[in-house]
Amino acid sequence: MVKATALYGHPEDPDAFDEYYANTHAPLVEEIPNLQRFEAAKIVATPDGSELPYYLMADLYCEDLEQLQGGFATDEGQAAVADIQNFATGGVTLFFSEIGA
Amino acid sequence: MVKATALYGHPEDPDAFDEYYANTHAPLVEEIPNLQRFEAAKIVATPDGSELPYYLMADLYCEDLEQLQGGFATDEGQAAVADIQNFATGGVTLFFSEIGA
Repeated sequence: MVKATALYGHPEDPDAFDEYYANTHAPLVEEIPNLQRFEAAKIVATPDGSELPYYLMADLYCEDLEQLQGGFATDEGQAAVADIQNFATGGVTLFFSEIGA
Repeated sequence: MVKATALYGHPEDPDAFDEYYANTHAPLVEEIPNLQRFEAAKIVATPDGSELPYYLMADLYCEDLEQLQGGFATDEGQAAVADIQNFATGGVTLFFSEIGA
């Protein structure tokens, strides 16, 4: 099992980010082929009370890396990636990882 | 549902990191009370082929934030956190997040 992770930095306008993410971006992500699970999580705390390093993280689960990269290469995948610039005013860090590797 | 996430930077000696993580650190993490699932994933690629931003990510799932923070406050939780300095030569970023929030 693999996942694609997006770590979003703190947006300029969190309410606008939340609204756009829920109503526009998440539906685009759900159109990406080959995905098995989509998990978004709002960063809420750190163990030592230090500043939150990110605003939101999203994990997209897929069977293997070939299917994940293939999903991102489709029109739906490219549309979801291209949409990031429409709301990620705090920047984004994207990577793929292999679970249990 | 909430999770604690650890993002490990690139270690000085990846083989030593992997060996220590699998045989020493992961067993300590599994002793932390209240955890429901432990998922470790090796970062393997980025969508645009850029440098991998982290080496390994670990997610610890728990029912709610109170139980998660309570688990980290136990002797077992403190031992697992204290152990990070023994192998995380590339640094670590730790945070708690609320899934679906």
